[in-house]
Amino acid sequence: MSSSMTKGWPQQHPELLPFVPLVLAICRDGVLSRGDYETFCAHVAGMTQLSPSARDALARWLNPDTPPDRRALVLLREIVRGSASDSDAPTSLAQLGLLLHSGTAACVPWAEEASEALEEIQNALGFGGVEQVRALLAGDPLLTRAPRATAPEDAGPDPRPASMPPRNDGGATDTGRLATWMTGSHARTRAEVLELLERSELRPCGDGSREIASDEYRERTRAAVQLLADEGIGALGFPEAFGGADDPGGAIAAFETLAFGDLSVLVKFGVQFGLFGGSVSQLGTRRHHEAYLTQIATMQLPGCYAMTETGHGSNVRDLETTARYDHETRELVVNSPSKAAGKDWIGNAACHGRLATVFARLIVEGEDHGVHAMLVPIRNDDGTLASGVTIEDRGLKLGLNGVDNGRIWFHDVRVPVDNLLDRFASIDKNGLYSSPIASDGRRFFTMLRTLVAGRVSVGAAAVSASKKGLTIAVRYAARRRQFGPAGSGEIPILRYGAVQRRLLPRLATTYGLHFACRMLQERFEFPTVAEDPELEVLAAGLKAYASDHCVDVLQTAREVCGGQGYLAAHAFAALKADTDVFTTFEGANPVLYQLVAKGLLSRYREEMGDLSLRGALRYLGDRAETSITELNPLQTRRTESEHLRDEDFYKAALRYRKERMLRSAARRLRSRLSAGMDSFDAVNAVQTHLIGLARAHVEQVIATAFADRVEEAPPGRPREALTRLNALCALSMIEADRGWFLESGYIEPAKSRALRSEVDRLSGEVAQDSAMLIDGLGIPDALLPPIAHRP
Amino acid sequence: MSSSMTKGWPQQHPELLPFVPLVLAICRDGVLSRGDYETFCAHVAGMTQLSPSARDALARWLNPDTPPDRRALVLLREIVRGSASDSDAPTSLAQLGLLLHSGTAACVPWAEEASEALEEIQNALGFGGVEQVRALLAGDPLLTRAPRATAPEDAGPDPRPASMPPRNDGGATDTGRLATWMTGSHARTRAEVLELLERSELRPCGDGSREIASDEYRERTRAAVQLLADEGIGALGFPEAFGGADDPGGAIAAFETLAFGDLSVLVKFGVQFGLFGGSVSQLGTRRHHEAYLTQIATMQLPGCYAMTETGHGSNVRDLETTARYDHETRELVVNSPSKAAGKDWIGNAACHGRLATVFARLIVEGEDHGVHAMLVPIRNDDGTLASGVTIEDRGLKLGLNGVDNGRIWFHDVRVPVDNLLDRFASIDKNGLYSSPIASDGRRFFTMLRTLVAGRVSVGAAAVSASKKGLTIAVRYAARRRQFGPAGSGEIPILRYGAVQRRLLPRLATTYGLHFACRMLQERFEFPTVAEDPELEVLAAGLKAYASDHCVDVLQTAREVCGGQGYLAAHAFAALKADTDVFTTFEGANPVLYQLVAKGLLSRYREEMGDLSLRGALRYLGDRAETSITELNPLQTRRTESEHLRDEDFYKAALRYRKERMLRSAARRLRSRLSAGMDSFDAVNAVQTHLIGLARAHVEQVIATAFADRVEEAPPGRPREALTRLNALCALSMIEADRGWFLESGYIEPAKSRALRSEVDRLSGEVAQDSAMLIDGLGIPDALLPPIAHRP
Repeated sequence: MSSSMTKGWPQQHPELLPFVPLVLAICRDGVLSRGDYETFCAHVAGMTQLSPSARDALARWLNPDTPPDRRALVLLREIVRGSASDSDAPTSLAQLGLLLHSGTAACVPWAEEASEALEEIQNALGFGGVEQVRALLAGDPLLTRAPRATAPEDAGPDPRPASMPPRNDGGATDTGRLATWMTGSHARTRAEVLELLERSELRPCGDGSREIASDEYRERTRAAVQLLADEGIGALGFPEAFGGADDPGGAIAAFETLAFGDLSVLVKFGVQFGLFGGSVSQLGTRRHHEAYLTQIATMQLPGCYAMTETGHGSNVRDLETTARYDHETRELVVNSPSKAAGKDWIGNAACHGRLATVFARLIVEGEDHGVHAMLVPIRNDDGTLASGVTIEDRGLKLGLNGVDNGRIWFHDVRVPVDNLLDRFASIDKNGLYSSPIASDGRRFFTMLRTLVAGRVSVGAAAVSASKKGLTIAVRYAARRRQFGPAGSGEIPILRYGAVQRRLLPRLATTYGLHFACRMLQERFEFPTVAEDPELEVLAAGLKAYASDHCVDVLQTAREVCGGQGYLAAHAFAALKADTDVFTTFEGANPVLYQLVAKGLLSRYREEMGDLSLRGALRYLGDRAETSITELNPLQTRRTESEHLRDEDFYKAALRYRKERMLRSAARRLRSRLSAGMDSFDAVNAVQTHLIGLARAHVEQVIATAFADRVEEAPPGRPREALTRLNALCALSMIEADRGWFLESGYIEPAKSRALRSEVDRLSGEVAQDSAMLIDGLGIPDALLPPIAHRP
Repeated sequence: MSSSMTKGWPQQHPELLPFVPLVLAICRDGVLSRGDYETFCAHVAGMTQLSPSARDALARWLNPDTPPDRRALVLLREIVRGSASDSDAPTSLAQLGLLLHSGTAACVPWAEEASEALEEIQNALGFGGVEQVRALLAGDPLLTRAPRATAPEDAGPDPRPASMPPRNDGGATDTGRLATWMTGSHARTRAEVLELLERSELRPCGDGSREIASDEYRERTRAAVQLLADEGIGALGFPEAFGGADDPGGAIAAFETLAFGDLSVLVKFGVQFGLFGGSVSQLGTRRHHEAYLTQIATMQLPGCYAMTETGHGSNVRDLETTARYDHETRELVVNSPSKAAGKDWIGNAACHGRLATVFARLIVEGEDHGVHAMLVPIRNDDGTLASGVTIEDRGLKLGLNGVDNGRIWFHDVRVPVDNLLDRFASIDKNGLYSSPIASDGRRFFTMLRTLVAGRVSVGAAAVSASKKGLTIAVRYAARRRQFGPAGSGEIPILRYGAVQRRLLPRLATTYGLHFACRMLQERFEFPTVAEDPELEVLAAGLKAYASDHCVDVLQTAREVCGGQGYLAAHAFAALKADTDVFTTFEGANPVLYQLVAKGLLSRYREEMGDLSLRGALRYLGDRAETSITELNPLQTRRTESEHLRDEDFYKAALRYRKERMLRSAARRLRSRLSAGMDSFDAVNAVQTHLIGLARAHVEQVIATAFADRVEEAPPGRPREALTRLNALCALSMIEADRGWFLESGYIEPAKSRALRSEVDRLSGEVAQDSAMLIDGLGIPDALLPPIAHRP
């Protein structure tokens, strides 16, 4: 179904207008469940009031084989919001549909008598209550029906407001509308987690408000994770059959929200449910699910994810631990061949873990099949070490001291062959190894790919920590007064140009990252995702960029708070120390950036390929197009504010940089390879270019995701503020790399200077909106130090 | 005495060559004691072997009223090193002189028979032993005689080698020569402190190798400072009459070296001796010195420096604490008028301090004379609080938890008027206030200026911490292997382009900062310094730049070490947390940068002044010169490696940027002021420009100081490596700001791209030298985690 047809739909068939809210709810951003579709069609088929062509249009629209595109959904949502935002709040999607219809000038015979029909569809579908109406009107792109964690019968009106902190204005103000919209999908899960975080057992204690010894801190962290398990938060992503909610998106939303609390709890939670539970769920098969998932979900079985070795951090493909298959006993014999082959930094290992997903080279009949995952008990039920297992406590760390990291060595540890997580490879009764994926390397990377949730989650957590740091710094800077014009008292430091420059471009990028990470989460969440080739690249790139950004933001925010920022009670001590390792775990950032660059290059190679003539022509075509539309002197010299703030300018600039860097990296690599250089050395020689390319790509993704979402933002002040913030996000990225843009001739010196001034100006303007924008991040006062409470 | 005369000296009078080593020792980098001069002259006068013109030349050279310039000393030292480095090591300066003479082709009658005469002079002067010879040959710019802390009779041959870590090569290798030369001035003091740092009482414990509660940590830190006091390290800068060594340079050298150890000890040490002791010494007069300095030096009287208030961090001029003079009792009555007027973050306040230097507005007969310093007891001898004093423990901090910071409030605390530190203002018997400095503002800033040692010291400590972080990361990266070309095993990560790019420009800048801070320390150390108008600007700029750099270096170094860097035992936990506040204390960096910019602007204004015609002409002249010599297309387009690495290129580029930014900032300010803008608002409007200008200035200072010292470096491999490192330091600064250079037309795009490649290339080359360069930083293994021990 083409986009133009889609767009024309409500115009061509105004009688379908009342269905729009329900359609939006059913489509749930592009993914249509066949069950919902059939229910809907069955009811619509009986509506003789509709013309056959209208029914046809509806059926085409709702065909799950050709789902509507995102753009079309956005347009429909706009229509709904544009027509309905001024009316009295309807309490169901059916009511909203009728209101829409009555509000239009286009009068059609089909009207009030359909009310019953619509209510009927709604009841049959099992959703459509007041919460969805609110979310839809607030511009929530996803929550147009209850999150899957909740059974349909519970999905009626919810006593808790969807917006995070219950404020006096009840979400009616600009700030409330922005906060609700920013909350986005899985609002109920997020609200639940926020409420839990206010419980005393979960209150941050790594924040130094009191001193805590690491033994006590570890125990407290364990208890906190147990509490989350008891509340059903840990198992959100597991299949329903095993105590879960089959809601991987909800699981990431929960993780993202937990990052507003104590980060040791977050990480131990991630180890138990994301890494350990995730590996059993994703790499195992039914027998593993049945045997373990329920126990993992309830924390009855605390576990580890034992991949990294001392000698091999980033280079996991060359892990040394071995698992030799012994056909006589049908066991795997696990060994650490050297001290450096010890599994290192393993969370949950020093104290609490009982079972571990261990990555080891699988050796069958003397043949090394590469790295595979298997379940190996490391402690007995009474907490003593399993025979053949040695564990060393990793001791004090820079941060995250509530997590018990350890090193594990195996000495002839025997486990039944059934412990092999065998989704991608198995050993049959005859002792024969087989795998649907022939190449060891490809199989291993396929296994890793199923675990992409880890990077998606860490990226999201880094964004949450950045939001928290900025909330503290911006609110403090709005309060703290120092110096001032002669005779008129001191002024808030947020009015200083230098302070605005430090905080507000970072706030803009944090918003951009929020949208980009949410976009990534949506792609991750939907079933088609497993085949989404860009997902892995995107997850790696956003994890790396968001964690680098987090370090930078927290340092800046701490400094803006001066001595107050240095007080442990003011949160930066824990925030900085705990997030520091985000740049390293789940893949060291420089390694991830290279993965991104290689992903882009291989796509480029696919496009250019060996079709040298066509490829070269297309390449030249691109260049020609660029020189005509982008490098003409009128463009490269334009310096007016309206031009610079125009989404068309900055999106094109960021796209141009990415594409040109991509071509340049490809050329550099190709020339080295054709000169006979070893491919490893060739990549090493252009490593800084590859990292630059990856960051350019990620920045383009961020600024574009921001721009895509701005048009869905609540109209009025929120959308206007976000439009400026989007420009600040993109322009500060371009400004930071203006050396490159000048080198490439994309901008001329005068334009570069104008960009700097524009970033200054925008920072000043955004400072005016900053109270609303910070409130929009939705962190409750209870999770913030007093210097950062709402005014 | 003109520099050209000086240069000609040994050529014109080769018979004076044997005196050169002694002359260098006496001159001690430009400062000549009158006693040494007279001793020397008395002996020389009796040497009839010398021609009258030679004796005359010697006398002119040694006249303390016209000391030789630095440049001339450098040349002489070159002559000595050039002639003597291959000969057998002489054991005295006299012997060295004779060797020099015998080594030259110029044959003169005056020869061996003068041996006795030289030895005699040497004995009369009381120095000239093997240690000085070694230092001189190694290129030590300052230690050409024993540090003043040591009495002449102790200054004979020293069993401890001057080079830091006793290595097998005994300093004879390139590495040893580099390390000795890098040690530089006050080598004995540095060696003493390093030796102390290896004692168990002083070993870092904030490094997390074991858990320590803050109460215990504070007590341990106090004991460590007591130990340093007992060893005479604390009082180095105090007058000899009060237990000191009258050696402010030695005090800073000690502080710089202590920064290789536990930073809580460093900071508590700095509070006691630098801030508290320094304020009594610098702001007080003889009666205060007599009453307190000896007790401060021995730690019998632990004290505080109570300046900052909760409400006023950077803006100390507007402090609120009051000290009202009561003429009846001849007392000062100290009060904190509000909660926010409490003295905040005061080191030594929570537990140990007895007496405090308190900054308060002095009110005499109802008139507020602005902020003055006075001594106020805060605790009684038994450790209980003094009457009227309230102290609150600041509790846990992000780092430096061995230091007991507190808040102090005063409620009608009465002290005798004699407690006023009255070097710059006093109240006479009749209750009349008087000061040699009429303006309250100027008086206050004069007081602050005497305390510049604090910023000099913090800058030096930040450089030490950067050295430590880089030592760990570079040594680790040289060991750690990950990935590698197919079939040839994994390679050290230091061979990766991206790792080289991250570590080596930072190593280069750290070397540059080392030289710049040493240059600052020398200027600080010599008597003329109090009147050195640039000293304050330089101290502020280098403190800000070095502490920003330190944060950046430690983050990068931690990340390069991956998970290993996150282990508390590997030092980054403490290093990062403890140095974090360096960007804030002794003046928040953005405020310091503005101070630098204002200093530059006021000098510029002095030059341009109201002499509008002359000023304008000179301005235009500058511009013309620039456009001819620097902006001609041949220059802006040159891309060859030799050109880019040429000191003339990069020094000119950095100077050009500083000067153009200065003019631009002046123009921007002037146009706003002449448009009637309030001066506070005008400065705020150009704040980011001012900060940019200040950083440009500091970078010029760093690269230039580096270049100035390279020519004195030990010849051969060390000097060659430092030459490349100097280029990398400067070019990476230019590259980082290439946007500006392109905007201004100073370089063209092709040159900008060439610069990037050159930085890549240089990073690769410097990686080859990195083992030597890291050893050259001279941190003993005992102060490093095992992952960073020498190979």
